[in-house]
Amino acid sequence: MPESTAEYRPTPRTVPTRLRERAAYDRELVHGILDEAYVCHLGFVRDGAPVVLPTLYGRVGERLYVHGSTGSRPLRMTSPGGTESTESTDGETAPGLAVCLTVTHVDGLVLARAAFHHSINYRSVMVHGVARPVSDPEERRTALDAIVNHVVPGRSYDSRPANARELAATAVIRLDLDEVSAKVRTGGPHDDAEDITLPHWAGVVPLVRGYGAPVPSDDLDPGITLPDYLAGR
Amino acid sequence: MPESTAEYRPTPRTVPTRLRERAAYDRELVHGILDEAYVCHLGFVRDGAPVVLPTLYGRVGERLYVHGSTGSRPLRMTSPGGTESTESTDGETAPGLAVCLTVTHVDGLVLARAAFHHSINYRSVMVHGVARPVSDPEERRTALDAIVNHVVPGRSYDSRPANARELAATAVIRLDLDEVSAKVRTGGPHDDAEDITLPHWAGVVPLVRGYGAPVPSDDLDPGITLPDYLAGR
Repeated sequence: MPESTAEYRPTPRTVPTRLRERAAYDRELVHGILDEAYVCHLGFVRDGAPVVLPTLYGRVGERLYVHGSTGSRPLRMTSPGGTESTESTDGETAPGLAVCLTVTHVDGLVLARAAFHHSINYRSVMVHGVARPVSDPEERRTALDAIVNHVVPGRSYDSRPANARELAATAVIRLDLDEVSAKVRTGGPHDDAEDITLPHWAGVVPLVRGYGAPVPSDDLDPGITLPDYLAGR
Repeated sequence: MPESTAEYRPTPRTVPTRLRERAAYDRELVHGILDEAYVCHLGFVRDGAPVVLPTLYGRVGERLYVHGSTGSRPLRMTSPGGTESTESTDGETAPGLAVCLTVTHVDGLVLARAAFHHSINYRSVMVHGVARPVSDPEERRTALDAIVNHVVPGRSYDSRPANARELAATAVIRLDLDEVSAKVRTGGPHDDAEDITLPHWAGVVPLVRGYGAPVPSDDLDPGITLPDYLAGR
């Protein structure tokens, strides 16, 4: 997909019915939100009912990748023998699974004088689309590297790559970043004018992500020191 | 619902096809995971496609509550005039929306010698069920208090309660904790025996939630000091 514009094109389902001022379509903003989170919540429909699964993911340009065991239900559902088949946008019938992939950061607790105006500051991205299995060996390797590097940037270069047995046991699915929106709330509470003088504290409690000291594996050779790419964690 | 047992009863959709040892049904464990998170990811089906929406929630015993504007799409869908109607378990047709509500904590990054064995430590809860609108005024008040107290425990007692206009603009839906499972991963990486001597650092990088110093609202009366219930944040 040529990255021809700075923004994703809004569609009926990426334009919210409410609080439209919080919606954004900027690619850089979306990429930043996606790259900063560790898990996404992947929604799909199974037997007519929704399922929301937390899972790791990786991004390569305008493509997201999710992996899992070839035995896992959602990954099976994207395959030719799966229980779902979705018409692709270009009219050809291809295996795929309609999904909604959402990533959310909670950045702060917003305390207003009025209970009604309590909120949180957040950044979220919602991606709608059809997830399809990836079979090309090179794209599968790229996707698996991206998923490992999403957890710790650069880590794929300091670990044993997947061998043939592991690759055979791993399903990879791809979701193109095409129908995408971000939602962002920042700033303080929005109390009504008549509530400003109420005797309640109002403001924001920021939330930050922290890292504890890395815990080496019990069986780690004591001669192996903490790599530089973990020093900042 | 009488809380007669210490565990939720597993159902076909709460028993995973893989990694069954990570699944748990203990009520206290589930309550703890739910109470510690700020947002859930609420999945539902709209026009045949999945939607995953991050949203605040509150818990009262074995019931979860979600609120929103009466104009918001998922909340409208639970109402009698909505686009979805689901047969309730007791056979009567009642308005409702089939949902899957998922909450996830990322507790650590798990670095193995093998790329294949990279993982995260996490605690998640998945609730399946039918969300129904709450119309009883007392239950609506209880639910809204629970949602505010979920953000900051005790805060509903130090804020202006919703007035009639705000209550009229707020939809509340309920999801019973009935078909529920938790999944938990803890501990270090599980490398294959032949990989233990590889020259890669292995272990866990813990993630912790941190709070920044509370930021008072610009228009806060300087005479109002930080309440005790925020001192620990």
